Amino acid sequence: MSADHLRQPIRIALDAMGSDFAPVSEVGGAVAALRASANRFHVVFVGNENVIRAELARADTSGLEFSVVHASEVITMHDSPVAALKQKPDSSIVVGMNLHKAGGVDAFVSAGNTGAVTAASTLILGRIPGVSRPTIGAVFPSEHGPTLVVDAGAVTDCKPHFLYEFGVMGSLYAELVLKKRNPRVGLLNIGEESSKGNEQAHEAYQLFAEKKTQLNFIGNVEGRDVLTGAADVIVCDGFTGNILLKFAESVPSYLKFQFKNYAGQAWWKKLLMGIMRQPLRTAFKDMDYQEFGGVPLLGVNGVTIIGHGGSTPRAVMNMLYRAEESVQGQINEKIREALRTVL
Amino acid sequence: MSADHLRQPIRIALDAMGSDFAPVSEVGGAVAALRASANRFHVVFVGNENVIRAELARADTSGLEFSVVHASEVITMHDSPVAALKQKPDSSIVVGMNLHKAGGVDAFVSAGNTGAVTAASTLILGRIPGVSRPTIGAVFPSEHGPTLVVDAGAVTDCKPHFLYEFGVMGSLYAELVLKKRNPRVGLLNIGEESSKGNEQAHEAYQLFAEKKTQLNFIGNVEGRDVLTGAADVIVCDGFTGNILLKFAESVPSYLKFQFKNYAGQAWWKKLLMGIMRQPLRTAFKDMDYQEFGGVPLLGVNGVTIIGHGGSTPRAVMNMLYRAEESVQGQINEKIREALRTVL
Repeated sequence: MSADHLRQPIRIALDAMGSDFAPVSEVGGAVAALRASANRFHVVFVGNENVIRAELARADTSGLEFSVVHASEVITMHDSPVAALKQKPDSSIVVGMNLHKAGGVDAFVSAGNTGAVTAASTLILGRIPGVSRPTIGAVFPSEHGPTLVVDAGAVTDCKPHFLYEFGVMGSLYAELVLKKRNPRVGLLNIGEESSKGNEQAHEAYQLFAEKKTQLNFIGNVEGRDVLTGAADVIVCDGFTGNILLKFAESVPSYLKFQFKNYAGQAWWKKLLMGIMRQPLRTAFKDMDYQEFGGVPLLGVNGVTIIGHGGSTPRAVMNMLYRAEESVQGQINEKIREALRTVL
Repeated sequence: MSADHLRQPIRIALDAMGSDFAPVSEVGGAVAALRASANRFHVVFVGNENVIRAELARADTSGLEFSVVHASEVITMHDSPVAALKQKPDSSIVVGMNLHKAGGVDAFVSAGNTGAVTAASTLILGRIPGVSRPTIGAVFPSEHGPTLVVDAGAVTDCKPHFLYEFGVMGSLYAELVLKKRNPRVGLLNIGEESSKGNEQAHEAYQLFAEKKTQLNFIGNVEGRDVLTGAADVIVCDGFTGNILLKFAESVPSYLKFQFKNYAGQAWWKKLLMGIMRQPLRTAFKDMDYQEFGGVPLLGVNGVTIIGHGGSTPRAVMNMLYRAEESVQGQINEKIREALRTVL
């Protein structure tokens, strides 16, 4: 499909039952996005129609472009991802993904069970040829703007060529969605030399080095290089990436705790620490899911954006924008092309 | 060796050629420690005698208990660890470690090449029976005081039973040196359920669960649990641990960068951001090598404390204190006992 064939406007399926506050955040976020963008895209709410219509009735939806597709079941955070797809065939995730598979929409967005959304995307949409494992890219803050860490938790046991593919997909996302020019791709390791690290990192380094013409590979980067922005895309296995992501996400609340302790009962210190909330928020804004919305699952035959369970309307609005950008950037065609020619 | 047989005072060999500022930091730190502790231990400086004596001559050493052992060679940060041990048999690291092996000292402390100190400890002192791989424990800050992450970089490719041994050794260090009662040991993973994570983490979980009576194992912990202090000891492979450590160490300077940006040219904001340096330092003080001094290499037949290349006199002083505490705590006898009875 070339750019000429892109349906106008883009249609995005939104799992209306996904977040902890569903469908309030979903309806609120979609209404805000449609209003702000003047119907630049069309939203298809997927979920319990009565519940969705009731929530829509509470909002001002005049002139907005949306539709509702009924799904009677809901996959919860407690459901086992793969089993839930079979046990709940009429869930919003399965119905929405099937709609995407059938071409009824250009993207699927959900703040629901991450494992279930990942499994549904992989099993229903299928993988892009050349992709061994779909991957989740997460955005970290840095001194040079957002940095994509890929994989952030989709694949815990990796082979070296998985890491290479993550690099290719991450680089395209960084270019097309994060708007980085010729993104610098680094391999996360425990030293700069190519001989450093574990077996997996060794072999992956060789792969990246061999295929250097395809990517702007800058070599190994260390844990300390993430926040300095030494690379635009940082490649690692999903075990390391997920631990790093959750650690980094916890830093602001740790600091608030310590600042509060430091302030104690002194009123002027309390005032100071209160004032610090804003710069602290600014420092970690690229990591704030309210702002970035959701993370992409890269490597499937479709566009999937996965949001945080605690998504607010603002987060849902930003998830829709990320989906729109991914469709517009034609990221999947570029992944297909890149992995066909190099592997 | 029981407590009765501990030599009084404890003798600590100090690699005088280790740090980037050697021997200035080493001599300054040792003199300060001996003075502050009123010769509670004896320091044996190991390195180029002329250089050491010249530096000692610049300090007030009256009444202090120390000696100097000459070593003509120096292993630098650029030397390949294992090769350097053979190529430089008269280096301060090899000479000091041999002295420790021969019983001339109770501990060896160095701010030199970490790989070389680790290799020399393992090859010259040997491993404690029951220990598959010696491990480095690193101290992280948390809402409940210092947390030990083990392994922090000694072993990149781990088998599940290595992780169990790290847990046993880390727990003893947390108890005997960090003074934690019945330390809570958590396995670093990407979810709380025992079925989560990679193969290695799965199998390690089973091992910890089976041998639960020996350790206060609290199950899996995630990246977000490190700073909240959910566990006193956090077990992971050295690849993950090292990346997490270097990332965490980089947080304060990232924040200073962002705070500076935020302040811009506004004088009152600059003032505010300047005031913030102290609470920021306090929040990360457990991670400041000036304060904790150095990290232990656990599992060898001896006490090895490894310092940061950039160690100041204050850092060296604290390294000596950590060595003293490790010897006093008889940590190796306890590791030997623990791993003999459970494996």
